[in-house]
Amino acid sequence: MSPMRPPFRFEVLATHGRARAGILHTPHGPIPTPIFAPVGTQATVKALTPAQLLEMDVSLILANTYHLYLRPGDELIAELGGLHRFMAWPRPILTDSGGFQVFSLAKLREIDDDGVTFRSHLDGSVHRFTPELSIRIQENLGADIIMAFDECPPPYDRAYNERALERTHRWAERSLKAHTRRDQALFGIVQGGVFPDLRERSARFLTSLDFQGYAIGGLSVGETKAEMYRMIEIVNDILPKDKPRYLMGVGTPEDLVEGILRGVDIFDCVLPTRLARHHAAMLAQGGRLNMRRAEFARDPRPIDATCGCYTCRHFSRAYVRHLIVAKEMLAATLLSIHNIYTLLRIVREMREAILAGTLDDWVAQWRAEREQEAKSG
Amino acid sequence: MSPMRPPFRFEVLATHGRARAGILHTPHGPIPTPIFAPVGTQATVKALTPAQLLEMDVSLILANTYHLYLRPGDELIAELGGLHRFMAWPRPILTDSGGFQVFSLAKLREIDDDGVTFRSHLDGSVHRFTPELSIRIQENLGADIIMAFDECPPPYDRAYNERALERTHRWAERSLKAHTRRDQALFGIVQGGVFPDLRERSARFLTSLDFQGYAIGGLSVGETKAEMYRMIEIVNDILPKDKPRYLMGVGTPEDLVEGILRGVDIFDCVLPTRLARHHAAMLAQGGRLNMRRAEFARDPRPIDATCGCYTCRHFSRAYVRHLIVAKEMLAATLLSIHNIYTLLRIVREMREAILAGTLDDWVAQWRAEREQEAKSG
Repeated sequence: MSPMRPPFRFEVLATHGRARAGILHTPHGPIPTPIFAPVGTQATVKALTPAQLLEMDVSLILANTYHLYLRPGDELIAELGGLHRFMAWPRPILTDSGGFQVFSLAKLREIDDDGVTFRSHLDGSVHRFTPELSIRIQENLGADIIMAFDECPPPYDRAYNERALERTHRWAERSLKAHTRRDQALFGIVQGGVFPDLRERSARFLTSLDFQGYAIGGLSVGETKAEMYRMIEIVNDILPKDKPRYLMGVGTPEDLVEGILRGVDIFDCVLPTRLARHHAAMLAQGGRLNMRRAEFARDPRPIDATCGCYTCRHFSRAYVRHLIVAKEMLAATLLSIHNIYTLLRIVREMREAILAGTLDDWVAQWRAEREQEAKSG
Repeated sequence: MSPMRPPFRFEVLATHGRARAGILHTPHGPIPTPIFAPVGTQATVKALTPAQLLEMDVSLILANTYHLYLRPGDELIAELGGLHRFMAWPRPILTDSGGFQVFSLAKLREIDDDGVTFRSHLDGSVHRFTPELSIRIQENLGADIIMAFDECPPPYDRAYNERALERTHRWAERSLKAHTRRDQALFGIVQGGVFPDLRERSARFLTSLDFQGYAIGGLSVGETKAEMYRMIEIVNDILPKDKPRYLMGVGTPEDLVEGILRGVDIFDCVLPTRLARHHAAMLAQGGRLNMRRAEFARDPRPIDATCGCYTCRHFSRAYVRHLIVAKEMLAATLLSIHNIYTLLRIVREMREAILAGTLDDWVAQWRAEREQEAKSG
């Protein structure tokens, strides 16, 4: 396979087993990999300013094509200079294809080989997505990394997955053909549910097309952890080593660790910001603290004494709990900062360990701390 | 009158008519005056982090004794190191006495000469505030500037105002007597409704007591602008020139300008953050923009092209409107930043003009721009 096309470049700096540490160069700057991308569904990472994301050194965020197409509209965003300028985010952006949201959020979907007709979850209006329209919307938004339009079937329905896979492959070809902007890297999406042979078929077929990177879709949607990790292994053993790999919608500490060990470079998930709005603080070893609990009312300690985020450097558990009880917006902001920072810590520490050749030690320690935490919790 | 007691010091650096530019030195640093203080009712300026307030160079914030006494409790805050540490605000804080909230928010109030019995607006529980308890709560919170406990009667009821004034004066004496912390400056509060003779009597009486500064209370509560400005003039002509003057609960651009011209040094108001949560952007000349309006949907301009705040430096009106329509929390954050910054601009520009001897020019220009804006709006 050919490497990525300029202005994109993917450098693998070091490997350890399947795990890789690298740099993905984009028109809006470099992304150190492995990386976790917070989600800015509606052109804002909920409850945070771009300045707060930059202070955490976030290097990539995701925005949703489906949402922005419906509101405020991709043409309006293009008219205002594109998504980077619209939301004042100077670093790389990734947009999804809109497929996943059409299948999970929209109503009255009718799928045919040409595309999907659906009703908006906002006002019930009827819309139709095709691979060509998804690419046009994503070109209007102007993200650095964009996705081929795909179908996301339920993971255990074999017959459906076979049909959907054929469609996804045709749509992948059409997405490639429709894409014109050279300053965007178009990624193909491997599907196939929990079926090893379908995953393999999908990975091989998409690898034969000239995508700039590859995503693994349709995971973390109800299958077991063992199945998810197995699918990642099967797919990553086929995907080209000189292009980035993106595991879509995954964002627990455990899944980041296991994904990186299996060769994943990019992750995204709404989990850290969604949990924050539900008062949960994430811990790097995988546990969560419900910060509303009465036991924190007089607790002078930070959420996590080992964490270096703005929240943990300045505020006590007692203060965070007070904000939650008093229904103050700042609670969501402070917890979002902590949760995103916690996931960034994991990918950064693992990247350093891969570069230093100490990944085995890092993972052994992480697992020991995880067991410790599970016992004490 | 004696000047302020160490560690407090009030320097008047320049005057222009009644207007003054100075520095109020406190245990948590200097406050350039005139100053506007954003309100952090529940130990948070709503939707903003302390870091965002520091980035705007906010030098003083206000917190509410009534709210913090009820939740999370002043003793809990004292146990956790005081309000500065609890909310991670390193600069000066001012707390009110709780009086105004008891009279405006709490239910079933019974006032006698000793104090006020009331029901919590949160859970209906019965509480009693006295001057002594108000001071004890404020000592637990540990603000740099604290207030004597006072009664806030409706502005036009003469008989009520006369009775309340006597009570407020006795409570002022008791507040002074109860106060023990030398690292807090206790301010007396001048009341008297819209009645010149009562205001004069109150100012003279309180001036005879050894307060470290003086507040003007009971204004901006329903009286006319002319009445408000007249009361400020009457009071400030009596208050000592070597101590700071604080006009409570006032925060429109017009009232800041007119207050400063009449010798006010400190203002506070919930207006900028409350308007922000209701989608209104404040303009320095006094106008407001309802940012939800459809006319802003494609507007690439900042809220105010003359404003240097984070919001106006980075975001379009179209983006702010999108956040509002999409019900994103970031809308309140960005508008709060803009609105607070707008009020800080006014006090800062007037301070510079007083120091430079150009206040007349500044005011003339502000009034001309205000007329211009009123015509075009």
